[in-house]
Amino acid sequence: MDERPSLPTSLAQAQALDRADPLGPLARAFALPDKLIYLDGHSLGPAPHAALTRVHQTTTTEWAQGLIRSWNDAGWIEWPARVGAKLAPLIGAQAHEVLITDSVSVNLFKLAAGALGLARQRCLYVEDDEFPTDQYVAQGLAALVDAPMVRLASGDALSGLTQGGVLIKSLVNYRTAALADMATLERAARAAGALIIWDLSHATGVVPVAVNRDGARLAVGCTYKYLNGGPGAPAFVFAAAETPPALTSPIAGWFGHADPFAFTPSYEPAKGVTRFAAGTPGILSLSALDGALDVFAGLSMEAVAAKAAGLSALALQRATALGLEVLSPLDPAQRGGHIALRHAEGFQIVQALIERGVIGDFRAPDTIRFGFSPLFLGWADVWHAMDALTDILATHTYKDSRFAQKGIVT
Amino acid sequence: MDERPSLPTSLAQAQALDRADPLGPLARAFALPDKLIYLDGHSLGPAPHAALTRVHQTTTTEWAQGLIRSWNDAGWIEWPARVGAKLAPLIGAQAHEVLITDSVSVNLFKLAAGALGLARQRCLYVEDDEFPTDQYVAQGLAALVDAPMVRLASGDALSGLTQGGVLIKSLVNYRTAALADMATLERAARAAGALIIWDLSHATGVVPVAVNRDGARLAVGCTYKYLNGGPGAPAFVFAAAETPPALTSPIAGWFGHADPFAFTPSYEPAKGVTRFAAGTPGILSLSALDGALDVFAGLSMEAVAAKAAGLSALALQRATALGLEVLSPLDPAQRGGHIALRHAEGFQIVQALIERGVIGDFRAPDTIRFGFSPLFLGWADVWHAMDALTDILATHTYKDSRFAQKGIVT
Repeated sequence: MDERPSLPTSLAQAQALDRADPLGPLARAFALPDKLIYLDGHSLGPAPHAALTRVHQTTTTEWAQGLIRSWNDAGWIEWPARVGAKLAPLIGAQAHEVLITDSVSVNLFKLAAGALGLARQRCLYVEDDEFPTDQYVAQGLAALVDAPMVRLASGDALSGLTQGGVLIKSLVNYRTAALADMATLERAARAAGALIIWDLSHATGVVPVAVNRDGARLAVGCTYKYLNGGPGAPAFVFAAAETPPALTSPIAGWFGHADPFAFTPSYEPAKGVTRFAAGTPGILSLSALDGALDVFAGLSMEAVAAKAAGLSALALQRATALGLEVLSPLDPAQRGGHIALRHAEGFQIVQALIERGVIGDFRAPDTIRFGFSPLFLGWADVWHAMDALTDILATHTYKDSRFAQKGIVT
Repeated sequence: MDERPSLPTSLAQAQALDRADPLGPLARAFALPDKLIYLDGHSLGPAPHAALTRVHQTTTTEWAQGLIRSWNDAGWIEWPARVGAKLAPLIGAQAHEVLITDSVSVNLFKLAAGALGLARQRCLYVEDDEFPTDQYVAQGLAALVDAPMVRLASGDALSGLTQGGVLIKSLVNYRTAALADMATLERAARAAGALIIWDLSHATGVVPVAVNRDGARLAVGCTYKYLNGGPGAPAFVFAAAETPPALTSPIAGWFGHADPFAFTPSYEPAKGVTRFAAGTPGILSLSALDGALDVFAGLSMEAVAAKAAGLSALALQRATALGLEVLSPLDPAQRGGHIALRHAEGFQIVQALIERGVIGDFRAPDTIRFGFSPLFLGWADVWHAMDALTDILATHTYKDSRFAQKGIVT
């Protein structure tokens, strides 16, 4: 990773890097407010113009004018698969292995329930710093089907896999951005008869995920973070082409039926990843995601990831100089697109930054997160953001009572 | 029901009824194409202007300008409950008993799984003409938790209830529009220790549902039919205030957690209907529904239902005169907002009607359905539609090869 350009040491150098950046013009694809530096794309990506245009078309033309005919004429019926195919290259999957449907939580439930029936051991494993909703879903499923759920210490995924059960595992940790080794874990899983459900939420669109190359079989992921699909955009399911037909969804909705409009009384699962569809897909949300993914057309995920690594390295360097504790791996090859810093008054610091037009986020009790979506952020943006952080710490403005805690949402 | 005005016997009489109709001006609230008579609102409601305006605001202002801040500033975090509260009076529920979340299929799964743990008998029941996806969901859940699933003959719900199990039951049958007797079935269910999950999809917004009055405890429903929430709009869950805390959702997503952003490792369900939330809600789809529900503000559901009954009575009278077989109850008190007619060449007839600007729908193998959303349809619309049907049958134009069968979707 030492072939990337050295980090800028001045605003002028940062601006020069921006001028030379082939990804730089992509910022114009986003409808961002003026003078805002948005370091929260790992939580909710900003609105691509193409997403806004598509939603407008879907609502005012396809829905309002086309009405029920648009299920066929606008192809709505195909959208979960078509938009899934558009997303597939971003995670290194084949087009027909990805479906857009439901939420990450619901999809995790479906895949984990299906996997429990096929893994050598009927047991669920999660690490104790796994994303909370992933832990909750495992807990709820375990209670429903009366299977054990085992909590592993952070980083102990391998020990769970050797038992042959079902592991739910984020590729990029939501808090620290630590990147797991997909290929190594999948090799261990296959050797032990275990199955891994990968949660690609904090990885997709900023890390060059390669599910096929690395042997992943099942995954879910979020589309409203680095993919910029819009608030609460539907999630995706990846099921490798090799997935045995016996691995079925427990939520047998009509859109996952082999012939949904035959209206047969008995359920017969569709082939391939479509078996994980359930109810009627949310077309307005799919439309936004459809437009948002156009921004990625023709991009090299390696180039995208290299820029994210550079931007976050700059932020880490300057944060370290300020004496902030770093929770994220320092090696960019082991890190996702965001960084995590620790400060006892992290909440107030994030609020003070927002007042200065720099949006990051906070995770209780003391973690500041900054995300580096390289499609709309430049080097000068990061430089300015770190200047603001420097000033807030130096002047102690964050201690002002107007920055007292209130609700925060990802 | 004989107090409603007698049916018009001419176009002039139909037009006179329209002029006197207090609901007539509501048609202007919808963005319908010119010269189209839309008898498919029971499948996908048309776009209310208020829904289009709300989505535009949510995408271009709340998302694009507000970004992550809109979870608090625009109140996105409260929308599943707030929009649920707006829907509640349409089904006779209290504001805090309704939540907008996921799809009908996913919500049925959640409620049925929860109910299985509390009913006297651990067994699922569905009638054999229940909406297919409801049958599939029951089948999938039964297989997952190893509980029996019993299929009842159509109309045999009572016999299932006496066993004390869990019955999934549509209030209005999707095909015939037959209206079930909620109060009677709930009395029987309570006496036997059974639980009913009502599917209100084909009833909500056109029939005066009264869940509290009639003793219903659990229900799901669709919002893209008579509520006009948009294609694939999120569904709703009703859980009566009396629902015991032990009835929990098996899909334990973070939005159903008592304190979602505390990020505690263990799941603790929220109180009330919020316990049935799962993943991050789809905000764009919720926004459309939010606007769509404004059209119902201040309306009497009795007046809405009376007009729907009148319009469908006119259609039934004219269809009967044409010799078409009627599958729907003739008594309007036992019927929902649509009617079903049978004809061996029903598909072609529906296609021929579409060519003349009259959109109904078709259900294999031989059923024609016409829906009578009374918010945007008038008496003259129904008169013209039946004139078109009369002419198509008289001239046999439906036999033309251009009306050959292709895919159809609800």
